[in-house]
Amino acid sequence: MEPVELERELQKPWEELSTQINTDDRQQVVAFLDSITPADTALAVSRLNAEEQNRLLTLLSPEEAAEVIEDISDAQGADLIEVIQPELAAAILEELGSDHVADLLGELDEDDANAIIDKMAPEEAEEARQFLAYEPDTAGGLMVSEYLDFLSDQTVQDVLDELQANREKYAEYDVQYLYVTDEDNRLQGVLRMRDLLFPKRTTKLTTLMISNPYRVNVNDSLDDLHNFFEEHNLFGVPVVDDDSRLLGIVLPEAVEEEKSNQSTDQFLGFSGIIGGEEFRSMPLLSRSGRRLSWLSLNIVLNILAASVIAFYQDTLAAVIALAVFLPMVSDMSGCSGNQAVAVSMRELSLGLVRPTELLRVLAKEASLGVINGVALGVLLGGVAYFWKGNAFLGLVVGGALAVNTVVAVSLGGLIPLLLKRAKLDPALVSSPLLTTVTDMCGFFFVLSFASLVLDKF
Amino acid sequence: MEPVELERELQKPWEELSTQINTDDRQQVVAFLDSITPADTALAVSRLNAEEQNRLLTLLSPEEAAEVIEDISDAQGADLIEVIQPELAAAILEELGSDHVADLLGELDEDDANAIIDKMAPEEAEEARQFLAYEPDTAGGLMVSEYLDFLSDQTVQDVLDELQANREKYAEYDVQYLYVTDEDNRLQGVLRMRDLLFPKRTTKLTTLMISNPYRVNVNDSLDDLHNFFEEHNLFGVPVVDDDSRLLGIVLPEAVEEEKSNQSTDQFLGFSGIIGGEEFRSMPLLSRSGRRLSWLSLNIVLNILAASVIAFYQDTLAAVIALAVFLPMVSDMSGCSGNQAVAVSMRELSLGLVRPTELLRVLAKEASLGVINGVALGVLLGGVAYFWKGNAFLGLVVGGALAVNTVVAVSLGGLIPLLLKRAKLDPALVSSPLLTTVTDMCGFFFVLSFASLVLDKF
Repeated sequence: MEPVELERELQKPWEELSTQINTDDRQQVVAFLDSITPADTALAVSRLNAEEQNRLLTLLSPEEAAEVIEDISDAQGADLIEVIQPELAAAILEELGSDHVADLLGELDEDDANAIIDKMAPEEAEEARQFLAYEPDTAGGLMVSEYLDFLSDQTVQDVLDELQANREKYAEYDVQYLYVTDEDNRLQGVLRMRDLLFPKRTTKLTTLMISNPYRVNVNDSLDDLHNFFEEHNLFGVPVVDDDSRLLGIVLPEAVEEEKSNQSTDQFLGFSGIIGGEEFRSMPLLSRSGRRLSWLSLNIVLNILAASVIAFYQDTLAAVIALAVFLPMVSDMSGCSGNQAVAVSMRELSLGLVRPTELLRVLAKEASLGVINGVALGVLLGGVAYFWKGNAFLGLVVGGALAVNTVVAVSLGGLIPLLLKRAKLDPALVSSPLLTTVTDMCGFFFVLSFASLVLDKF
Repeated sequence: MEPVELERELQKPWEELSTQINTDDRQQVVAFLDSITPADTALAVSRLNAEEQNRLLTLLSPEEAAEVIEDISDAQGADLIEVIQPELAAAILEELGSDHVADLLGELDEDDANAIIDKMAPEEAEEARQFLAYEPDTAGGLMVSEYLDFLSDQTVQDVLDELQANREKYAEYDVQYLYVTDEDNRLQGVLRMRDLLFPKRTTKLTTLMISNPYRVNVNDSLDDLHNFFEEHNLFGVPVVDDDSRLLGIVLPEAVEEEKSNQSTDQFLGFSGIIGGEEFRSMPLLSRSGRRLSWLSLNIVLNILAASVIAFYQDTLAAVIALAVFLPMVSDMSGCSGNQAVAVSMRELSLGLVRPTELLRVLAKEASLGVINGVALGVLLGGVAYFWKGNAFLGLVVGGALAVNTVVAVSLGGLIPLLLKRAKLDPALVSSPLLTTVTDMCGFFFVLSFASLVLDKF
């Protein structure tokens, strides 16, 4: 494996792509892009500068450019779309699936998105506007408009004729079901492709279809859809409005993909990357600014917590060894609390706890907090005792860590539930909030306990 | 909305389920489970005690029990399976899809899993053993054995007869393609259901099929599969061994679901929940022990970092105000570093950076570190200056934060790449490693800078 791996790593697809773009040889660029994996396409395109990206998309036909955009993530795709002329962007978007168009436009500023929509063909523009109006994590935001629908008095032969006549178009449709509607586009029934295999060709769809089929409302949430596909093993579900009018279909993989995106956003938010994903190919100042916006809030919270130490300066001056343990107590409690935060966020997302069940979470976490607090307190207290040979130092440090661990895990368990009830995002707010409180409490417990026995040091 | 929501939240499905289990009325239990959503089933089952769970699964038929297990997560399902007799567990597993069986057994201890497999019917046991042998995040671990395959000299009529004869069985198959193999089960071609609609019924499959179809190897990784479905808009892909023998199919939603699970594990690991998911319905001591295993490593790292403060005790005693800023500098740097860790982990998972590109990441992060370090250093240094009116305190604190921010973001960007190359899990190891180093450096910079200008305070 070694030499092969080495060779692969030495290849730099972006350098080759960049060279080829500069030759302006469209066919060569297309051949090169076809020869590499989508992952390498994403890598290569992300490393081009804005001008090279612009030239690449201008060089390719709209269909070819659309294929490139399908290979890369929405955030990256939106960055590409932003650098080119709205006319070209519109032509490229017309080649993409309806849900993909909305995802890309949703990543842009409203003005940029509207400039592109204005250049699209009237029908596609209308559809894009409609799809953009839905929240991304609802059935409306996840549905596609590529589906097959027929009227209930049409026959098997009508369907076969239609399928034959539009072979190429339908070959790209992600659809295994045929939907049957009435004249007003209200959903009447569903047919599977295999239901067409056996009946006579003059049979009307209304006699073959499963009436009153499963459906979801256009406003149903991602969790509703996830539960739906957990319960029903289907390849897609029709989406209807409040009047049962068929608007689109949602595929199970779209639901799983959005779930995965949410987990990613949660992870990034929890780590202090907010306001959308950051890629290192973005401009330095924009990366820096986005990270600073979160850090500068954090520094204010930190100052708040540290003010507790400032208040107890005299105690600290009297027993300088305490300064060694202050960061340890606050850091360890923060870690314990974050574990409880993670468990609460996970249980909330699986529906295993309800935001109102504060007492249950408190009971479960406080009891765990006592056990872990005692264990960690004995450990750290022991270290403090053996270091200075002073039992009171051990008691103060160990006792503070034990008490603060109970506070941290209890609070860590409760915070995501409280934030959820307050309709705030637990992934963004839990950790800074928790850390501030556990820092303050940690400093307070160590220093106030010490000041009680100051004459024993 | 308010009253409805209130009402829903007052219902406690687990209390009702518990009552009904105690009446031993199977039909009533089944009717109740049918009446609630899968999410409420998961919630209710998770809140039962082990004995009630045992009684529930014993009361239901294996088919009904399998439906309950399909509604809940694998980790929960494994907990359920563990509490019942192996005979019953085997009977229930035989009712589940092949991939689901392997997922559940994979969550159990090897001994428990083998005890159950030994009680399964020989054919199912053989299949379970085979599926368990594949890594969960490979094509082998993600594939299902429910697919339709035919020999190349069979005709359209043969297929239709087979479909008619096994209507019920195939209705549950997640399959939209028919696979064509030779006598040795080697993959020859693929057909879509709609390809059967038009040809004469005596046509041989070999003339209809798409020859040499897309396929994946049984050892292909999750990322390979994800890229495959990004590139090819298919409802499934056949999985073959090195001799092109057909072993199963992988569906795109299984790939997306596993991706989502990986994001979740990453988030949980990053927050200090390791060794599988934790649910609050688990026994207290096992929850406590799992969390402690991570925390006790952390406390050792913390002691290491704090030893820097111990070394500089005299400096600290001379300028006690520094003790206020020590936790702030280390905490802020930790936050900055974690942002860089998150960006690196994200870029790695999207393939936008290669583990060998240390210099690229270093250049990108160091320059950002300088900007953010100066910004945060000026802010915190300003606070220190105005608090004590001492310019040197401001310079020491601000300078230390600035330098340590550069260290933290550079290191934070590099650590996931280095861990990936060392084949360690960045989600688990990055954060403790980073925090220890940035704590040590932070304490060192503040205290060593201060000791240089000790006479100015």
